[in-house]
Amino acid sequence: MFFEGSEKKLEIVVKLSPGDSLRKIDQSFWTEIVVSSGAQILSSIHNDYLSAYLLSESSLFVWDDRIVMITCGETKLIQAVHTFLKRFSREDILSLIFQRKNEYCSHLQKTNFFSDIESLKNVFNGKSFRFGNTDSHHNFLYHIDREFTPSPKDYTHELLMYHLGSDAKAIFCQEGQEKNKIREFLKLNKYFGDWKIDDFVFQPYGYSLNAIKGPHYFTVHVTPQEEGSYASFETNIALWGEHKNYGVQILHAFSPESFDLVSFNDFLPERPFQNSNYPVKYVKEKLKCGYEVQFRQFIKKDTAEESAVLIP
Amino acid sequence: MFFEGSEKKLEIVVKLSPGDSLRKIDQSFWTEIVVSSGAQILSSIHNDYLSAYLLSESSLFVWDDRIVMITCGETKLIQAVHTFLKRFSREDILSLIFQRKNEYCSHLQKTNFFSDIESLKNVFNGKSFRFGNTDSHHNFLYHIDREFTPSPKDYTHELLMYHLGSDAKAIFCQEGQEKNKIREFLKLNKYFGDWKIDDFVFQPYGYSLNAIKGPHYFTVHVTPQEEGSYASFETNIALWGEHKNYGVQILHAFSPESFDLVSFNDFLPERPFQNSNYPVKYVKEKLKCGYEVQFRQFIKKDTAEESAVLIP
Repeated sequence: MFFEGSEKKLEIVVKLSPGDSLRKIDQSFWTEIVVSSGAQILSSIHNDYLSAYLLSESSLFVWDDRIVMITCGETKLIQAVHTFLKRFSREDILSLIFQRKNEYCSHLQKTNFFSDIESLKNVFNGKSFRFGNTDSHHNFLYHIDREFTPSPKDYTHELLMYHLGSDAKAIFCQEGQEKNKIREFLKLNKYFGDWKIDDFVFQPYGYSLNAIKGPHYFTVHVTPQEEGSYASFETNIALWGEHKNYGVQILHAFSPESFDLVSFNDFLPERPFQNSNYPVKYVKEKLKCGYEVQFRQFIKKDTAEESAVLIP
Repeated sequence: MFFEGSEKKLEIVVKLSPGDSLRKIDQSFWTEIVVSSGAQILSSIHNDYLSAYLLSESSLFVWDDRIVMITCGETKLIQAVHTFLKRFSREDILSLIFQRKNEYCSHLQKTNFFSDIESLKNVFNGKSFRFGNTDSHHNFLYHIDREFTPSPKDYTHELLMYHLGSDAKAIFCQEGQEKNKIREFLKLNKYFGDWKIDDFVFQPYGYSLNAIKGPHYFTVHVTPQEEGSYASFETNIALWGEHKNYGVQILHAFSPESFDLVSFNDFLPERPFQNSNYPVKYVKEKLKCGYEVQFRQFIKKDTAEESAVLIP
């Protein structure tokens, strides 16, 4: 059965009264939000800055003033907004960004970007964009129409990898694979030795990982199934600073046939991966909500002959 | 409003009794077939070998023993099979191939490949293939599970061009454009001076052309609208023989951002367009129904920066 690895993503920033924090809210609220989207909380890790919930379909991160929620499969992430608004008024929301990544099989989804956004129109004025061509990889992004000033280091990178290479498949397609083998494959000890890590191996396949250190997170989700293999790496670290080599390392490990890189407010001075992969799209937009977003699509030049896929 | 230019295609070959011919059937039958698919006949041309009907959504060609029908937009071409079977029994069918080309917006279609094929399962045993990755350009192909031996020169080429260049847009996006200007742009006089031609300029945009000579046809369909511009060129001539330069010429004229080439039984010895465009997929399959099919996808390497598309 096909499983849609590619994610929907929601980020909400709220106005705080002094001494208030989203992290003071009882966990039952986050459970409600997650369940309303069609997922479940599996486990969590915490530090002084944030809580990271590993979900049956991806991840939820909660800081004092914001949440980032990522879900894959057939989840209805837009419901998380409506559940969030049971407790918060729309005036409490400083920023809200909702994305849908490029899907393998959009026709199998329970909702689409347009119906998702339609459900918000009685609550917010918003703007919607498409980054990338409709017939090729593209990202839909919606933000509420409010001016917002992100803090100077409010970065995000989303690395979305399609059709994984044979090394990655060998590791992730082994039933009952051990966490340690996967962590080794991802070279976590070398690059993120002092991060707090929470990961889960799904049956028969699939892997999710949350990692946190200070206010920073990264998260890895892998759907290795032949029909639509996919992996994502997402983080709020300055990926092209201290962790520059890790961006290259993870691409090397997953060796995807194509990948998209969506970056918010942190950009590589030169064009990345120019030599080994083929850039086919570069979209750049300064959003009114304060973020500059860059979307890049890369496809490996490929002239190897292959057979057609027989549809059962 | 978005219009899906990319086509569905049906080819049926029938067993003939001596002296029989599909061309002897009253035109009302072809009208019924076309209407059942959701299209209309606009005009037709004829010669000793075939009839070519220009449709409100693409084309229908009828020879003595076979038909080729191509429809775009929101048509339900699979209905043509069911209408055809009102007059012919399934034993009369020697070969049936049904394709769906890569769609811009598959979620807007009334049916999908899987539901189309499902509707045939009580009539035929068949095989279905996907050429190309789900997340990138791909072609679905179904054929009935019967052995068939195509005649030695039974070729087809389908050149499917996405996101047209500025020259093509300038010509095709001018409201009320004259046929002569378009024919000149396509260099028809130079390459196909002695062919019988039937073409139509749609309001406000869109262009369709059928051309025939002997048993051969070619057909051009253009949907130039900004949101999903598309052009197709399809023919049963040996495109890499006598008309080799025209394949290059039409690609030059339309200058698409990406294109797919689907070929049946006639292949260029070397890889085409290797220098100016980026081959990202090459799929080859020898079908049990007697045809070898090759699918190639090309994308222009593109690092030019562009803005995101604001969704109204």
